[in-house]
Amino acid sequence: MDVIAELTGLIGADAVLTAPSDLDAVTEDWRGRYRGPALCLARPATAEQVADVVRCCARHGVPVLPQGGNTSLCGGAVPSENGPAPVILSLTRMRAVRAIDPVNNTMEVEAGCVLATVQDAAAAAGRLYPVSLGAEGSCQIGGTIATNAGGTSVLRYGNTRENVLGLEVVLADGTIWSGLYGLRKNNTGYDLKHLFIGSEGTLGIITAATLKLHPLPTRHAVAWVGMASPEDALTLLTRVQERSAARLSAFEMINRLQLDLVAGHVPGRRSPIGSEADWHVLIELSDNGSGDALDAELQAILEDAFADGLLSDAALASSEAQRHAMWEVRHSVSEANKKAGVGLTTDCAVPLSAVPAFIAAATGAVRALVPDLPVIVVAHLGDGNVHFIPFFTFDAWEAAAKDGGTEGGGRDALAAALRHAVNDEAARLKGTFSAEHGVGRVQLPEMARYKPSAELALMRAVKRALDPQNIFNPGRLLPPG
Amino acid sequence: MDVIAELTGLIGADAVLTAPSDLDAVTEDWRGRYRGPALCLARPATAEQVADVVRCCARHGVPVLPQGGNTSLCGGAVPSENGPAPVILSLTRMRAVRAIDPVNNTMEVEAGCVLATVQDAAAAAGRLYPVSLGAEGSCQIGGTIATNAGGTSVLRYGNTRENVLGLEVVLADGTIWSGLYGLRKNNTGYDLKHLFIGSEGTLGIITAATLKLHPLPTRHAVAWVGMASPEDALTLLTRVQERSAARLSAFEMINRLQLDLVAGHVPGRRSPIGSEADWHVLIELSDNGSGDALDAELQAILEDAFADGLLSDAALASSEAQRHAMWEVRHSVSEANKKAGVGLTTDCAVPLSAVPAFIAAATGAVRALVPDLPVIVVAHLGDGNVHFIPFFTFDAWEAAAKDGGTEGGGRDALAAALRHAVNDEAARLKGTFSAEHGVGRVQLPEMARYKPSAELALMRAVKRALDPQNIFNPGRLLPPG
Repeated sequence: MDVIAELTGLIGADAVLTAPSDLDAVTEDWRGRYRGPALCLARPATAEQVADVVRCCARHGVPVLPQGGNTSLCGGAVPSENGPAPVILSLTRMRAVRAIDPVNNTMEVEAGCVLATVQDAAAAAGRLYPVSLGAEGSCQIGGTIATNAGGTSVLRYGNTRENVLGLEVVLADGTIWSGLYGLRKNNTGYDLKHLFIGSEGTLGIITAATLKLHPLPTRHAVAWVGMASPEDALTLLTRVQERSAARLSAFEMINRLQLDLVAGHVPGRRSPIGSEADWHVLIELSDNGSGDALDAELQAILEDAFADGLLSDAALASSEAQRHAMWEVRHSVSEANKKAGVGLTTDCAVPLSAVPAFIAAATGAVRALVPDLPVIVVAHLGDGNVHFIPFFTFDAWEAAAKDGGTEGGGRDALAAALRHAVNDEAARLKGTFSAEHGVGRVQLPEMARYKPSAELALMRAVKRALDPQNIFNPGRLLPPG
Repeated sequence: MDVIAELTGLIGADAVLTAPSDLDAVTEDWRGRYRGPALCLARPATAEQVADVVRCCARHGVPVLPQGGNTSLCGGAVPSENGPAPVILSLTRMRAVRAIDPVNNTMEVEAGCVLATVQDAAAAAGRLYPVSLGAEGSCQIGGTIATNAGGTSVLRYGNTRENVLGLEVVLADGTIWSGLYGLRKNNTGYDLKHLFIGSEGTLGIITAATLKLHPLPTRHAVAWVGMASPEDALTLLTRVQERSAARLSAFEMINRLQLDLVAGHVPGRRSPIGSEADWHVLIELSDNGSGDALDAELQAILEDAFADGLLSDAALASSEAQRHAMWEVRHSVSEANKKAGVGLTTDCAVPLSAVPAFIAAATGAVRALVPDLPVIVVAHLGDGNVHFIPFFTFDAWEAAAKDGGTEGGGRDALAAALRHAVNDEAARLKGTFSAEHGVGRVQLPEMARYKPSAELALMRAVKRALDPQNIFNPGRLLPPG
């Protein structure tokens, strides 16, 4: 019996889809950049059915590629072009919020839950699930766990990893590991959940999770600040941390070009301040309780900073609408950059103290390749995470492509050279080439380029131990070695 | 050449100790309860020397037992009585604070650094390394990482695991993995540090770490509260969390018997409140900045709680001396219990919402074995971590021992039965038998009793993958399977 027939027998004909119209959406990434063939789409409804699918695929030696909301920014959720066609395993039918415990500050959810649904369910219970990112309306909680998603709340609440207490995982032999612990402390051997978080589907299939919740903040203070340099921004960050500690919930930085692109290309957006500053910072404090002490606290910090010459201009949002407008500027960067030209996004993190040096060095490195090339900087500065983006207008990109020889080849080679130039500087400063987007298809070659051999060897040992037959997402995460 | 001669050649005669006077202190635990033979004590001075020791031991098939400050509460740091005598590997000579980066909020330290030294070095730079526990004056940072130590700051800052960003580890084949990253975000494959944190020396030798620092709090508010029940304490906890969120840095609970034992057996200690309440809670808020808003915040919460009948009495510390005195009561529980009789300490955690049910069920379970047995409760309530302690006066313990048959055997069997009774109730409520103390020698049988087989199988697979020759702490953490 062939795999598809067997799967159909195990989980039902309506749960095993092979029609091109069904496969199109899951074999191509959401930006239309990456695609690859799949044997079928399997949509099991329970962890037991997931285990059935995994055992069947293992028997037949067919790879299993788990897919969440297919919102990866690095081609992580779709099949490889040349690899053996996998069964794409979707958890979409497992989307129950199983339980919320507001006293324990936990919730148990199935992997197919959309992130926004998780956030909403927590909020309805007066709690916060803090992970927040652009794709939250369609990405699934299982995918965010498998990729250890970051976003704009990491500074205060940590990455997805820090917000997962327990997991239910289907292992390579079809065993279901029920590790849905809701404990803050548990020192009984290796903390296995951390193996699967961020493993990008290569070690097991996450079918459910116990998430950590937090009190829902009831107060927010937001300011927009113009500054002369990343150094000044870091100094201000340190001051806010020393004064406001865990109330600091965002410290985002963009450069002048990024602000201009947002104001110029996205209707309704404009700079919250009038200054011509080269660097712009959005600061958010949030807290529980009531009263307006938070605005006063942020204002006092900014007044001191202004007196000390750290900032050239600042606006403190005085209403929910103003706070929203400031955040809208920040959230519009992707849309603006897409409309304005071609940005070669990178996803580096370095120690915070090295951010100014990194930005300077990366600027120098890319301009050594393309003189005077504009660069966009979008940084989660509080996390040391800098999206440093060599930027071309559409015309400049066309011209550069021609300079590079064959049109496509020249462009690809130039893009790769520029990204390497940026990532090399991050590596030199003990940083990383992938802070929050993961490895996926796009960054796999970088694993071989940047990861120490001892680290790759350890990862391979773990992979062999947990997936000896190499059926989970083969060819991903670990470069051939 | 024998192992000792070879080791001497590798790291020097003064670094390989075999005299009984040198071995006594490292082959017996600090409470004198557990001991076992060792081949020698090796004291390498660098990671390279650690690697030399490991390779040498691997060649000879001699086990390696890493030891920090030898402060384990469960016999985790000393050799087994019957196993093959290991080389005890001490990191005491690797005790440099290599670097502090106050902007990145990180410090790099060698494994042999005493925890208090780490705390002091951070404080000198205006930063907090938050892990704090009774043995901090002698335990070593490497040991706290290898055991994922807990303590009294977990509620706000997490366990040791949450405060480690990077590790340097000597692996079983002598490779040195240099993973001393100081990054908040790094999504480039499996997060290997989490394998070694809490692995109790079974996967590798931690030689250095990059630790996460926090702003040093400058304000504290502490209150002592008398309450009628653990349910009321949980309700108050939820209220404080909803109001004060991340300012809440401790929520500790003890029962009346514990308070009476402290007041009765430790000179200078007395109850901070006059009430005859059955349950007592210590609450601490801490924050940065200046002003007395924190006291006012805590007072308002307590006034509301009093008005609602949640508490019978409360005292808000009005000076540093009063705050200190309240904490001294909490910190004196071990001393009091040791002087007053024999307490059979347990280390359970359950979901916070299950703490009242756990205390009631555990009380019932131990009294089914020993009618009317007094029980002590010392809980890190904010973490769901309850040290539930069946308690005997010295006379009662003597009598119980005689009842149980042979003196020693009867006592051991009774102690084991009582601990199992408590741990069984924790397990029934989806809890754990070891929240913060780890497994060590004492809790190894509990691993077989309570851990799901899928979990043990996964752990064994990881162990085989990273230490195929089984030279790191063989026989520990994983029960024979």
